[in-house]
Amino acid sequence: MHLPSAFDRYRAEIDAEVRSALATYPSPLYDMLRYHLGWIDAQGRPLDGSAGKALRPTLCLLACEALGKGYAHALPAAAAIELVHNFSLIHDDVQDDDRERRHRPTVWAIWGKPQAINAGTAMRVVASLTLLRLGEHGVPAEVQLEALRLLDESCLRLIEGQYLDISFESRLDVGVSEYLHMIALKTGALIGCALEVGALLGGTDAPTREAFRELGHNLGLTFQIRDDILGIWGEQAKTGKPVGADIRRRKKSLPIVYALERAQGPERATLASIYEGAAVNEEALATVLAILDDVGARAKAQALAVACCERALGQLGRMPLLPWARQSLEEMADFLAQRDF
Amino acid sequence: MHLPSAFDRYRAEIDAEVRSALATYPSPLYDMLRYHLGWIDAQGRPLDGSAGKALRPTLCLLACEALGKGYAHALPAAAAIELVHNFSLIHDDVQDDDRERRHRPTVWAIWGKPQAINAGTAMRVVASLTLLRLGEHGVPAEVQLEALRLLDESCLRLIEGQYLDISFESRLDVGVSEYLHMIALKTGALIGCALEVGALLGGTDAPTREAFRELGHNLGLTFQIRDDILGIWGEQAKTGKPVGADIRRRKKSLPIVYALERAQGPERATLASIYEGAAVNEEALATVLAILDDVGARAKAQALAVACCERALGQLGRMPLLPWARQSLEEMADFLAQRDF
Repeated sequence: MHLPSAFDRYRAEIDAEVRSALATYPSPLYDMLRYHLGWIDAQGRPLDGSAGKALRPTLCLLACEALGKGYAHALPAAAAIELVHNFSLIHDDVQDDDRERRHRPTVWAIWGKPQAINAGTAMRVVASLTLLRLGEHGVPAEVQLEALRLLDESCLRLIEGQYLDISFESRLDVGVSEYLHMIALKTGALIGCALEVGALLGGTDAPTREAFRELGHNLGLTFQIRDDILGIWGEQAKTGKPVGADIRRRKKSLPIVYALERAQGPERATLASIYEGAAVNEEALATVLAILDDVGARAKAQALAVACCERALGQLGRMPLLPWARQSLEEMADFLAQRDF
Repeated sequence: MHLPSAFDRYRAEIDAEVRSALATYPSPLYDMLRYHLGWIDAQGRPLDGSAGKALRPTLCLLACEALGKGYAHALPAAAAIELVHNFSLIHDDVQDDDRERRHRPTVWAIWGKPQAINAGTAMRVVASLTLLRLGEHGVPAEVQLEALRLLDESCLRLIEGQYLDISFESRLDVGVSEYLHMIALKTGALIGCALEVGALLGGTDAPTREAFRELGHNLGLTFQIRDDILGIWGEQAKTGKPVGADIRRRKKSLPIVYALERAQGPERATLASIYEGAAVNEEALATVLAILDDVGARAKAQALAVACCERALGQLGRMPLLPWARQSLEEMADFLAQRDF
């Protein structure tokens, strides 16, 4: 399974735009942001590292280009969306007490939580200022305001999703539908925004914009459900995380939520006691994996991911897109449902 | 000493605008914001409480009205600035580990730090969306974009000030000039923004806007330095804080920074050891107060506050303002330098 070609198509320009957005801020405060993005180490020395797949800005530019008017003018919006995503990662790591991300210490693990909070909020504000660069590309003021509104509204949904996710930590009765609502907010909203803003800048009408947002919602769910599967059964060599990583962290991802809903009697009680407990040892990990197996949690989750992907593909068939771009978006949907990294 | 009349002039409308900005968000996430603003208690029951003086939005509306074209259209900007200020308070309390504000438990003391981070960031995003309501008052799109830019840029300065303030905690060699630079960012920038955005919406030219921003910078310094004085020598009945409150918290406010710079020999060593220590007992508090007295820290701080106030008054004399509004701003400057609450 290889990365869809859309990632290669835009990667260099997205990277340059995000770097340029942060280039004007010399203060050490922003070194935390540059560190998080993989550009420098904790001592400020340059790194060659990359900062992930850049899924959201790639989808933004692809949506824009799919409508036939190029994508260069949309680069500030793509960069802004990537910055909002990264603001949420910096704060998530603080909130979840995670000391490591992408094989590196998280911002708070180096600078402490108070400064990491500053780093995340600064990233969020820089995102808005980056979006305002649309004006330099001739995007009309009204369209800039609309893009800002979409970005802010999706950011509020993202925060609400994070609010729910944290509130789920102390509960064992979260149902699958409640869980899907949470990830629709936490993950789906910003991906929906990426596609809708791309469509807005592609100059399309309101119904097509709405279709792009809905497409993003489904792609976001596909992405997150597959992510939940990889967080438990992914191969370490490919994902960078050990098998059962999310179980060790007692993260209530979809397979666990499903198993807590589905399991009965002693199996349910065992699972509940492990998820109420303090730490997950090797024996408990094996027990959880066996229960997930018993209730068919992996197959159920994958079926949900595939269903979201199918909905996305159905929508794509009805949208007015350049043929190569439609194909590229279809390739993306399949990748998100089937990827092993 | 009573509150300047400008506060009464706009209070009800500012309050209504901020409430209306948050009215469209029913989710429990936003109850944390409503709690922080003093509208509800932790169980969601309505309160009559007020949320402070609303200095920043008052200055914003006064600047706008001083230019002769009314202020009703500027209310969304005033509300947005108040929301940005309150975002920073929610995060500050998390960062400083403060369990109480205005005689009530802070947001994190009730909901925990992870959720308080969400509350603060949501408040910041709601601020931007509130600013976009300027369009409903007929403010042109280009002016809205400029107001958004000013708000975001001042917010980044505020965060940089907070970054410096936190970094000062582990240092004993912070000089007075470095301290003044920090509060110019942490407090002066947003107050400068309040006045500049007010002037922008008052329809003035660039040099006058610049003069308003500079005026705000000086009013912000005046406010903060006087705040530092009240944080040590304020009367509990008036400020709501016990005498020496900032010393008990080992906050490196201006009088302490000055004393650490000014004191010599054993006095300097004693002060340093108390500020490096873990807790400040009654004896240490008395020692610190005596050292501050010895080096004349209170008089020095008040002289600096008065100097900033004088600069503000000098600027006011040169600006093209309605006479009653000039007088109201002068009254405000004097109040900020002399207030005992």
